[in-house]
Amino acid sequence: MSGDAEELLARVALTWLAEPGTRSVFGLVGQYGPVGALDLLLDGGGPDDTIRAAVAARRMHGDPRTVAAEALARTERLGARVVVPGDDEWPVRVEELRHLRLPDARRRVDRETAPPLCFWVRGSWPLGETLDRSVAVVGARAATGYGHHVATDLGYGLADRDWTVVSGGAFGIDAAAHRGALTADGPTVAVLACGVDRPYPMGNAALFDRIADTGLLVSEWMPGAEPLRQRFLIRNRVIAAGTRGTVLVEAAARSGATQTAHRALALARPTMVVPGPVTSAMSVGAHELLREEPATRLVAGLAHVLEEVGRIGELATVPRGPDRPVDLLDDDARSIVEALPRRGALAVDVLAARAGVDLRTALRKLSMLEDLTMVVRRDTGYALGPGARPGPRSTGADR
Amino acid sequence: MSGDAEELLARVALTWLAEPGTRSVFGLVGQYGPVGALDLLLDGGGPDDTIRAAVAARRMHGDPRTVAAEALARTERLGARVVVPGDDEWPVRVEELRHLRLPDARRRVDRETAPPLCFWVRGSWPLGETLDRSVAVVGARAATGYGHHVATDLGYGLADRDWTVVSGGAFGIDAAAHRGALTADGPTVAVLACGVDRPYPMGNAALFDRIADTGLLVSEWMPGAEPLRQRFLIRNRVIAAGTRGTVLVEAAARSGATQTAHRALALARPTMVVPGPVTSAMSVGAHELLREEPATRLVAGLAHVLEEVGRIGELATVPRGPDRPVDLLDDDARSIVEALPRRGALAVDVLAARAGVDLRTALRKLSMLEDLTMVVRRDTGYALGPGARPGPRSTGADR
Repeated sequence: MSGDAEELLARVALTWLAEPGTRSVFGLVGQYGPVGALDLLLDGGGPDDTIRAAVAARRMHGDPRTVAAEALARTERLGARVVVPGDDEWPVRVEELRHLRLPDARRRVDRETAPPLCFWVRGSWPLGETLDRSVAVVGARAATGYGHHVATDLGYGLADRDWTVVSGGAFGIDAAAHRGALTADGPTVAVLACGVDRPYPMGNAALFDRIADTGLLVSEWMPGAEPLRQRFLIRNRVIAAGTRGTVLVEAAARSGATQTAHRALALARPTMVVPGPVTSAMSVGAHELLREEPATRLVAGLAHVLEEVGRIGELATVPRGPDRPVDLLDDDARSIVEALPRRGALAVDVLAARAGVDLRTALRKLSMLEDLTMVVRRDTGYALGPGARPGPRSTGADR
Repeated sequence: MSGDAEELLARVALTWLAEPGTRSVFGLVGQYGPVGALDLLLDGGGPDDTIRAAVAARRMHGDPRTVAAEALARTERLGARVVVPGDDEWPVRVEELRHLRLPDARRRVDRETAPPLCFWVRGSWPLGETLDRSVAVVGARAATGYGHHVATDLGYGLADRDWTVVSGGAFGIDAAAHRGALTADGPTVAVLACGVDRPYPMGNAALFDRIADTGLLVSEWMPGAEPLRQRFLIRNRVIAAGTRGTVLVEAAARSGATQTAHRALALARPTMVVPGPVTSAMSVGAHELLREEPATRLVAGLAHVLEEVGRIGELATVPRGPDRPVDLLDDDARSIVEALPRRGALAVDVLAARAGVDLRTALRKLSMLEDLTMVVRRDTGYALGPGARPGPRSTGADR
């Protein structure tokens, strides 16, 4: 087994031994590496009683390395993958969770906010690039028609402006935001609190299928893992840390829907709240947040959100006209360029299938397109190159 | 003519010569007194060309002292009165307008924000005491059903908690706030931009009649004065300055409805904004204010408003029970005590009429009630005394 494979196996085993976010485990990995940390824990070591007891209890259910190997085989069968720190597509922004300390954290789950050890990913986009330019849109499950409307609109608008919409795949606001993004043909990311093979809730199964096809399903838990109650809270730190900012649309008083916003605030990320009618119970939590957290920002629509997360030039409209470089290409070449994601790379076979050309044609055209700098080759496949982008667009897209 | 009568006449003449709020006129009154200021202006003096030209133009329409004398006679015929600084019922808080400077005031009307020279008042409550514990509730004329509901609720709740509801008598939010207060049998004050004999808009005539009966109609303009466009802005400074705080319910983008809020902000008074659906054009101005003016406070209901304008103990509920001192009285005495306003005094004839007893009975009962400290005698009539109030209530009512 190569060193990389051994480390991957150790990381997976560690996520099974203790819930993601456990600070003591993350500390051991930093000190001894994943293999060393796993060995130390399996030898009965560890910095505190809690983690030693947790490991002892877990081992009664199986051998961690065997469980991890089975999980990796199952991951492969699913067409999913495991992403670890150091991978090209590792979303480096989540590393900022090192510094996250929730004020007045009383529950254990609120103290265990260390960065993830690995992610399971379903979908063809590179995770890091997809999250680089992303906004979380979260809120109540029992959303009102108003909340649905606002979240769908925001999801659509963000995707239409090349922002990835991240949410938790729940009923209500989460689903509306994902759906809005899908309607605009933008990638959307559902960060789950269970295995990527059994996204919860089941009632959103069709939505999860669409997200897996055109966006990403992401989880810190191995395939088959159940959506235990505390996992939603653990998951929420990733939604807050993996995005440029969080928008809360509807939340009941002191409800779970505000927790992602509190994590975003603690990370000093732009934390935005959509107000609503004061007569609506589903806006009470939103108004509480606006009243009690001076760092939150009231947003009434897409323009306000872009103002918070965007940069200079973000508000400029994307030019549409006859002078795009892609208009100079033949049909096959053009199909290939147009099949490429706005950001990130695609494997050549996926790309050929998307473009509707055979693999041989794809390779031939790609080689010429590379000469024109219209595509670039990466470890993970082909991506749009500078030559394919109209001038004003490159600022936003080249970051 | 007594000195007081001469000064009153001069103040009325000055409000006719130049619009209320004119800084140069207010300055002259401070320097020379109203009589001296009037003489100086009528002699062609004055600190700047603008005021001299305005006075010259106005004089072509009549002799200021004659106009003022006619206005005072008409005021008396109406059963109204003129209140001037130094009167018991002068609302001293409006004097803070001396310090009001609107940021970026470009229009003339935005620079002329001096305190009033006098008020016309219709209604039996003393103006100063009525405004002492008051909140302004203002907003869009083209209010939505949501805005109507919120303003009515706030008006009711404030009046029910012994707060005077102040507004401008306009359609929409203003009318809803007044009506809410009337429903709770609380005094409400409409500050007008025209004479108190012809409150504008006519469509609210029935509302104005009810307000005149149970609250106050107030104006800086003499009877017969027309509601000229710029007068609404001049009037708005009084709504902001005469109250403890201003609540904005619904406003379109960059609309007139936000101007009272801007004046309250410039006076450093609590300035509160009710949010609404981001899908409503009538909440755009409210959200703008919350986003752009950090000193504004989002309020979602009565409790939030009381928190801003109230003091310790304000949130305590008023006890209701059998042990009120008034329950020990005979029917006539009890009727008299119950006819007294919660704050302020009433002339004995007004009080007798309200209580449904003859003047002779009223005077006899009042003398006994005074011995019991259940009423107190003031220059302006009789008021509730400490003996009539249940303990916990006295804190709020005795201020």
